[in-house]
Amino acid sequence: MIKTESLIHTMKQNKIDGYLLPRNNMFISEDIHPAENKIMKLCGFSGSAGTLLIMREGKSYLFVDGRYELQAPEETDSTEVEVICTTKISMYDWMRANLPEGFKLGLNPQTISIAEYSKLQNKLPQIKIYAIEELIDKDLPLVKGRVFEQNIEYAGISREEKIGSIMSFLNNHHKDGWLFCASDSVSWLLNLRSKCLPDTPIIRAYAWVGQNGEIAVFGGNLDFGKITPNFATYNLTELDSFLKKHKKTNVYIDEKNTPLYIAKLAQKHKINLYQHTDICEIQKAVKNPIELQGIRKAHKRDALAVINFLYWLENNFEGQTELEIVNKLHEFRAQGKNFFSESFETIAAFGSNAAIVHYHPTAKTNKELKSGSLLLLDSGAQYYDGTTDITRTIAIGKPTQEMINNFTLVLKGHIRLSQALFPQGTTGQNLDALARLDLWKEGKDYHHGTGHGVGCFLNVHECPLRISTSGSTYPLQAGMITSIEPGYYKENAYGIRIENLVEITANAQSNTLSFVPLTLVPIDKHLINDKLLNKEEKDWLNRYHERIEQTLSKELAPNVQEWLKQACAKI
Amino acid sequence: MIKTESLIHTMKQNKIDGYLLPRNNMFISEDIHPAENKIMKLCGFSGSAGTLLIMREGKSYLFVDGRYELQAPEETDSTEVEVICTTKISMYDWMRANLPEGFKLGLNPQTISIAEYSKLQNKLPQIKIYAIEELIDKDLPLVKGRVFEQNIEYAGISREEKIGSIMSFLNNHHKDGWLFCASDSVSWLLNLRSKCLPDTPIIRAYAWVGQNGEIAVFGGNLDFGKITPNFATYNLTELDSFLKKHKKTNVYIDEKNTPLYIAKLAQKHKINLYQHTDICEIQKAVKNPIELQGIRKAHKRDALAVINFLYWLENNFEGQTELEIVNKLHEFRAQGKNFFSESFETIAAFGSNAAIVHYHPTAKTNKELKSGSLLLLDSGAQYYDGTTDITRTIAIGKPTQEMINNFTLVLKGHIRLSQALFPQGTTGQNLDALARLDLWKEGKDYHHGTGHGVGCFLNVHECPLRISTSGSTYPLQAGMITSIEPGYYKENAYGIRIENLVEITANAQSNTLSFVPLTLVPIDKHLINDKLLNKEEKDWLNRYHERIEQTLSKELAPNVQEWLKQACAKI
Repeated sequence: MIKTESLIHTMKQNKIDGYLLPRNNMFISEDIHPAENKIMKLCGFSGSAGTLLIMREGKSYLFVDGRYELQAPEETDSTEVEVICTTKISMYDWMRANLPEGFKLGLNPQTISIAEYSKLQNKLPQIKIYAIEELIDKDLPLVKGRVFEQNIEYAGISREEKIGSIMSFLNNHHKDGWLFCASDSVSWLLNLRSKCLPDTPIIRAYAWVGQNGEIAVFGGNLDFGKITPNFATYNLTELDSFLKKHKKTNVYIDEKNTPLYIAKLAQKHKINLYQHTDICEIQKAVKNPIELQGIRKAHKRDALAVINFLYWLENNFEGQTELEIVNKLHEFRAQGKNFFSESFETIAAFGSNAAIVHYHPTAKTNKELKSGSLLLLDSGAQYYDGTTDITRTIAIGKPTQEMINNFTLVLKGHIRLSQALFPQGTTGQNLDALARLDLWKEGKDYHHGTGHGVGCFLNVHECPLRISTSGSTYPLQAGMITSIEPGYYKENAYGIRIENLVEITANAQSNTLSFVPLTLVPIDKHLINDKLLNKEEKDWLNRYHERIEQTLSKELAPNVQEWLKQACAKI
Repeated sequence: MIKTESLIHTMKQNKIDGYLLPRNNMFISEDIHPAENKIMKLCGFSGSAGTLLIMREGKSYLFVDGRYELQAPEETDSTEVEVICTTKISMYDWMRANLPEGFKLGLNPQTISIAEYSKLQNKLPQIKIYAIEELIDKDLPLVKGRVFEQNIEYAGISREEKIGSIMSFLNNHHKDGWLFCASDSVSWLLNLRSKCLPDTPIIRAYAWVGQNGEIAVFGGNLDFGKITPNFATYNLTELDSFLKKHKKTNVYIDEKNTPLYIAKLAQKHKINLYQHTDICEIQKAVKNPIELQGIRKAHKRDALAVINFLYWLENNFEGQTELEIVNKLHEFRAQGKNFFSESFETIAAFGSNAAIVHYHPTAKTNKELKSGSLLLLDSGAQYYDGTTDITRTIAIGKPTQEMINNFTLVLKGHIRLSQALFPQGTTGQNLDALARLDLWKEGKDYHHGTGHGVGCFLNVHECPLRISTSGSTYPLQAGMITSIEPGYYKENAYGIRIENLVEITANAQSNTLSFVPLTLVPIDKHLINDKLLNKEEKDWLNRYHERIEQTLSKELAPNVQEWLKQACAKI
């Protein structure tokens, strides 16, 4: 299935030995419409991150991170595709070790960023890289979506103010313009959203902001409907002629999300490109007070939905399947004010399915809940005023002592990180180990990051904030949102993850930062071995549960109130 | 003093606005002879790391890290030099923010690495960089030193075996040779040491290893004495003609420690340079079993010297000064078998002097010990079989409760890191926060790294291992040695640091790594508030002290035995 005759023919014609296919299209991000998923189409892998190296001869290689180490081989045909786990060896190290000297690698300059291209060149000097447009990618056009305005009562800052701040930055740095290529940056900058993707309300477009105030938006898939934009809009194909009109200008771009072909267009039109971290990315990550207010409200609404669901589950789990759980949870959420969509496909994973870190139930894998194991439920919603993401692991019937002990180890890590104070300048990779220390002590670990930034009615995985063992070098700042989500996965048995979103706040007195949970859903005490918790950890849990009950109890029906009281009782 | 007329004249002649002067000479490392210290000569700063930006007009700038934030302004004239702390803003960020567009920066290609040059170019596109040889550096010739063989009974692996392994690596990677420019790599590779520096027994030379077995050593300052080397030796100036004879070859170098002028020589002779991490650096960092055996013995000897000193100190501190302490400690160490030299200039810092992180007593600053404060004693030795480095903070008379509480916070961090288990692949920057967490909780911190690699009768600061908040990306491996040295410094009051060297060992059962202390000297219990320690922490301390007593007691005089028994008694 993976290598059609026409593909092999084209590779032969272009004299290339392998073709590197990222999952993304010309918008360099993990967010694509399922119908645009080339990798899934070619080899069946459905995960949210991965790169396929299609070899002209022999097996192809699929590079996925630790989250998909178990899932990828299950979804692909091992006679056609070998899965390489990049948590164990980076794609570059693998390619350096395995591709012969002089290997000819093709890639599409529309879907590879300038930064990625440089990295490939630097890390793999023995390989020859050929930019070949539209080898495979032309088959899958962009899905269209209706555009709408993000209301100022949620956005907090007007489009004009955001644009104005970029204009003065350009002015101060003697640049003529900035070409923003990241969809979420453009969505944030223009206070626009759309329905083109199922779970992420971004508009997919590039935006030019001139020092002179000129704004141009490039996105052939945009349907403005009743909106009359107060800026110029173009098809993506018109970028060439637009840049021609701006020849010899000095322009900022962020190489990590700017496709390679834009560097080629710039060269053609003698435009000088200057690297600068996407200024929207930084401003967007630090939520403004209006956004924070909305996000906190959205989390209360989300917590009420999840608590009502948990009450329902406790009384109705018998005979339910994972897919029914997904639907039921959706029903509870959809009743909430400002609900727009899920923020990602709900992971309802029972028993051994939960050992596959980013499992999603399908008709084929769908399990029925039975007493004696764990339900891992990772879900979230897009509300107009904020984005949520929560994982709870729930005992179904009586869990084993081993499950309880491992859950408690994960909880200890969750608490140690949650209650950390740390100075300005601390990065995610500095903090990551705090969540793993207790697992490490028993030779256990989890093969995914500990936290990711979250947008405001935008991407549920938002740059630049990450908490992970490597590559998370961006300093945490007050006003940022991150998840805290340590886990533990026992292959063929069960999975555990405890995820809260937290807000980063400043403690003026000690000049430190700390986390305040936004997520307000109790942690299942049936899974806690309180002998393994010290006093500080118990205090944290009791304070957290007390806050949940005080904040939400009055909004619940009496029977759910009673359930919450039990769930939040002190240990 | 800093800007002589001839310097200004030369800068004008070369039309440069500023000249970047690193502390090192053509051997890119922190180890230089004091007589070679250009920065000290020009501005008075004596620290072991720093870069001077000499401006043609106005004040010059001295970039130092957090260790020297207090010391540098004290040693320099503020009307001539402004000190910039790179722990707060990197040199590159500072230069980007403060140097005007088109600024002409001069530097010496003999003393700047290829990597550093690339970094300057990439990070400061608005600046023009000019390579100008011998602007200042020619004034200070290399100090000569007698070379001697490192005995195989300590080195563990013969020169021939080390060279052989590099030859097969070159063969496997189709390269003609490797030019090693790091002095400690060359010393390790050739099993040679020298007395040219006071505290670091390296030979300072470049070494060529050919795939064909050719060995050539370049170092004009080497005095082989009675040794007849079985390889060719050259002056540094002969590198040009040597490379000419090897024109059009394919050669590995490590850009981070290869001077820029070598890239220019290679270009001249059409030699293709390939970047590869210095393979000696990696092999040297992982100590072989013979080295580990020697290192453990050296630490026992060192501990006996320090324990005898501590016993002496307790009974004789009245009226002693920091400089007398330095001499006395040297006397105890010098009696030990295999003692060669200190491994760095001893830091004996009393009271407020200890708040200056890398203070060394001088006649001008020398303090007398008085009851009621702390002595911070950071010292180490070079033994033929191993290198030591230990810091103990000692209560002189009765310490205040504040000192005790802060010492206990530092100790908690020291213990948390010391008893961590962690998986293969974990880096120093992942672990660093474990040592800071308790200080952070009170808004406190220390502005230096938590750990550094240590050589075997080589550099007391050895690459690539580091435990610090950033840039320490090298995975810890079994057989490596690191320091663990959290601290706390109260300006104008006192300083605290607790430093052990530890060996990294593998736990086969859980596939994790952990630390085993090499340093065997008790931690001053007068400074511990045991109410702030939990059971796990007390257990660690008691086990550590028990091991010290069991290992060393029988080697001590009866009165010191008794002292050690008290010092190691359970809390």
